[in-house]
Amino acid sequence: MTDAVGAGGAAGGAVPPPRLREFAAAVLRGQGQVTFLPSAAAGGVFCLALTAAGWEYGLYGLAGTAVGTVTARLLGAERDRVSLGLEGFNACLTALGLAAVLGPHHLSTALLALAGCVVVTVVTAAAGNLLGPLGLPSLTLPFCLTASAAAAAAPGFRRVWHQGGTPAALPRPAAGPTALGAEDLARGFLSGFAQIFLAPQWYVGALLLLGLLVASRRAAAVACLGNAAGIATAWALGAPAAGIAGGMAGYNAVLVALALCGVFLPARAATLAYALLGAAAATAAGPAVAALLAPSGVPVFTWPFVLTTLVFLAAARSFPRLGGS
Amino acid sequence: MTDAVGAGGAAGGAVPPPRLREFAAAVLRGQGQVTFLPSAAAGGVFCLALTAAGWEYGLYGLAGTAVGTVTARLLGAERDRVSLGLEGFNACLTALGLAAVLGPHHLSTALLALAGCVVVTVVTAAAGNLLGPLGLPSLTLPFCLTASAAAAAAPGFRRVWHQGGTPAALPRPAAGPTALGAEDLARGFLSGFAQIFLAPQWYVGALLLLGLLVASRRAAAVACLGNAAGIATAWALGAPAAGIAGGMAGYNAVLVALALCGVFLPARAATLAYALLGAAAATAAGPAVAALLAPSGVPVFTWPFVLTTLVFLAAARSFPRLGGS
Amino acid sequence: MTDAVGAGGAAGGAVPPPRLREFAAAVLRGQGQVTFLPSAAAGGVFCLALTAAGWEYGLYGLAGTAVGTVTARLLGAERDRVSLGLEGFNACLTALGLAAVLGPHHLSTALLALAGCVVVTVVTAAAGNLLGPLGLPSLTLPFCLTASAAAAAAPGFRRVWHQGGTPAALPRPAAGPTALGAEDLARGFLSGFAQIFLAPQWYVGALLLLGLLVASRRAAAVACLGNAAGIATAWALGAPAAGIAGGMAGYNAVLVALALCGVFLPARAATLAYALLGAAAATAAGPAVAALLAPSGVPVFTWPFVLTTLVFLAAARSFPRLGGS
Repeated sequence: MTDAVGAGGAAGGAVPPPRLREFAAAVLRGQGQVTFLPSAAAGGVFCLALTAAGWEYGLYGLAGTAVGTVTARLLGAERDRVSLGLEGFNACLTALGLAAVLGPHHLSTALLALAGCVVVTVVTAAAGNLLGPLGLPSLTLPFCLTASAAAAAAPGFRRVWHQGGTPAALPRPAAGPTALGAEDLARGFLSGFAQIFLAPQWYVGALLLLGLLVASRRAAAVACLGNAAGIATAWALGAPAAGIAGGMAGYNAVLVALALCGVFLPARAATLAYALLGAAAATAAGPAVAALLAPSGVPVFTWPFVLTTLVFLAAARSFPRLGGS
Repeated sequence: MTDAVGAGGAAGGAVPPPRLREFAAAVLRGQGQVTFLPSAAAGGVFCLALTAAGWEYGLYGLAGTAVGTVTARLLGAERDRVSLGLEGFNACLTALGLAAVLGPHHLSTALLALAGCVVVTVVTAAAGNLLGPLGLPSLTLPFCLTASAAAAAAPGFRRVWHQGGTPAALPRPAAGPTALGAEDLARGFLSGFAQIFLAPQWYVGALLLLGLLVASRRAAAVACLGNAAGIATAWALGAPAAGIAGGMAGYNAVLVALALCGVFLPARAATLAYALLGAAAATAAGPAVAALLAPSGVPVFTWPFVLTTLVFLAAARSFPRLGGS
Repeated sequence: MTDAVGAGGAAGGAVPPPRLREFAAAVLRGQGQVTFLPSAAAGGVFCLALTAAGWEYGLYGLAGTAVGTVTARLLGAERDRVSLGLEGFNACLTALGLAAVLGPHHLSTALLALAGCVVVTVVTAAAGNLLGPLGLPSLTLPFCLTASAAAAAAPGFRRVWHQGGTPAALPRPAAGPTALGAEDLARGFLSGFAQIFLAPQWYVGALLLLGLLVASRRAAAVACLGNAAGIATAWALGAPAAGIAGGMAGYNAVLVALALCGVFLPARAATLAYALLGAAAATAAGPAVAALLAPSGVPVFTWPFVLTTLVFLAAARSFPRLGGS
């Protein structure tokens, strides 16, 4: 994968000092790592995409990644992990998740996001130490744990929760038409990329796909196939068209496909088939996670991706046909 | 344990080719493994019992076991595991579970059961790889995970869910009389065996008990004692008589007793006492699991058996009196 | 830590036989271990404190610890663990938890508490065997698991449940004033110690603090700082003043601070800062656990302490600055 280390240096005439450049590159790579890309160029495009969703989101994402990266370095985490952005992406998503759940314009949300990015760094270390010996990556599990805890706790704190009632409710059966038009399909496909960063806008997704293309054409292709498998599964099972058009069917599928074909398993025909089975399973698991969390008022976040990928990776060792080239 | 390898060959005059016979034996053993019996004879009787509950259930169970066995072989799972039926029983239960939750007569249910049997094979491999190094078996955990996810997700998909509302509800306190008559006791005892395969009929349970007897008289005796311990516990705690008569008190207790006395711990007086304590604990845990899953609309399945047995097996290492002969 | 082995012998003129004295000391140490103190003197003061909350609670606590200690010895658990009280504290809390949830004056509650103390000893062994290889302690996880299962199951059994409706409900947003007066603060600080044993009275907390002081001044100081961090966090986030005054903000924070500074990590400036971050995180996690368990009718118990401490301990290995002196 191409990795534009000096991306930060191209912005102005005055070249920043090396340590600052290095830090900026680690932060941008942290943004790229949300889709497993240790690429500062992709991270920069992702940053633009978030800003297109709203300047607040661009800021929360970038500041979150920076706070996570700094916290990890202060706590003495491994330099290589920090430099590759592996200590940044969960903090990026945690900041975005809190902004989405609590509203980005409250001072309380900004302070909580700051605290959340510190805590998620601790959770990342814990998850790495517990899953590492099992040969499993921690993925976005630290984000899911931290953001879910924050979302569940928030209505219990009056200086944090400004919405009135809580979103806690018993799950209801799906309603609304299931027929998909061409526009639904196109919007759903692009929004599937945007939902990875918790944004619903199709044009944000288009920019994110561009970022993937910039860093790795193969990753972009796998992501598109995963997205298509997710949408096809959701349509076949009868998910309401409005949800598919909003990108809810594709975002977990994209991440599962990337993880299982090219990142944690080699990119081959057999792993691509396995990855698409995983993408379909994660899409079917989406409403399951929603039903389990709804009574507590917690959003789905990327739980379906995390759980499905961990199961499929833990299983892969038993299937020699998926092994190394 | 006796293991009638050639059971498939006795059915007709024309002897089937060896590979087909071998496969048929693996499938029948897979049915037997639901109660830890690698016995094609027991599996054959279990198959009859399910057919007595309804031809659809016989078909779902047999087809589920076959699909799981084939999938495991195609993915390259260990031949010994496949041959002993260890790759079949979770798929058998998954197919039956989806038929029970979604209704067996819809084409969508049949297709989903097919997909579920493929996915549960992956989950089985993952559970084995994660629990194996801890010295723990995966039991019916893969079935519980897959069927619970499917049951939670189903109301979110309109082509899959044909019942209208969802079963999601806050748990309610027990109601109804607790006095047990002789008929309640007899029906509850037999239905306790039937509920292992998610069937409520007492005569199905009688056939299943016959299958246990065919394969191993000791296993049948342990199962009966576990069942009795479960019923006694439920009665003492004040479970409604209707639930006990329906077999809800006994099915987890039977499985816990079998697992802890004779399968994963040696069959001895000390382990029998331990197994009956476990059977009582699993029976008490039944309504706990129900209360935890009810708000998401998920049935109890065999979660109480799985969780209790894993705890009691993990603990057993600390208690030298339960150890090897 | 000072450990008054002969504390039991000072009570009367007639000296009890050595084995009984040893057993009594193990039981008192078991009470002390609720706050990680293998001190019979502290356990004795804790016993008085519980009796101040009500003679029933003193009895449930002491009998629970005794039953757990005896069960562990009968099952053949390690002598050292039994002698240090490590097999008693989860049983102590389980008995108190069942008394609090089911009402202490029913015979059914007393019998269930007895059974619960036997079962929690098995769960303690399982948790130790599974967490030990990961380098993690089992803390009060066995109590939380057993008491949560019992609380969730209880309304399903008519001879056990005497309250009518169940406490299961969807979580609601916090209500009530958040301004803290001096009296709220003082009551909340003391009640924070009392809630460790599920008691709400400030004077019970004052006695428990005295017990901590008797055993270890450093532990008492760390506990006070953790309590203050918890209260400050809850106030800053806008928790209702009534909850803080009832001790709900402090009890998990006290336990987290003790665990992370002096018990499982060395007592140093860096670990104190880490412990106070953990105390704040556990306080924020309190309403999250409440929201997740509310729909099933399960109280929070010490889940926030257990989960936060396990995460922070698992993470600590990655942060060399927290390591051994």
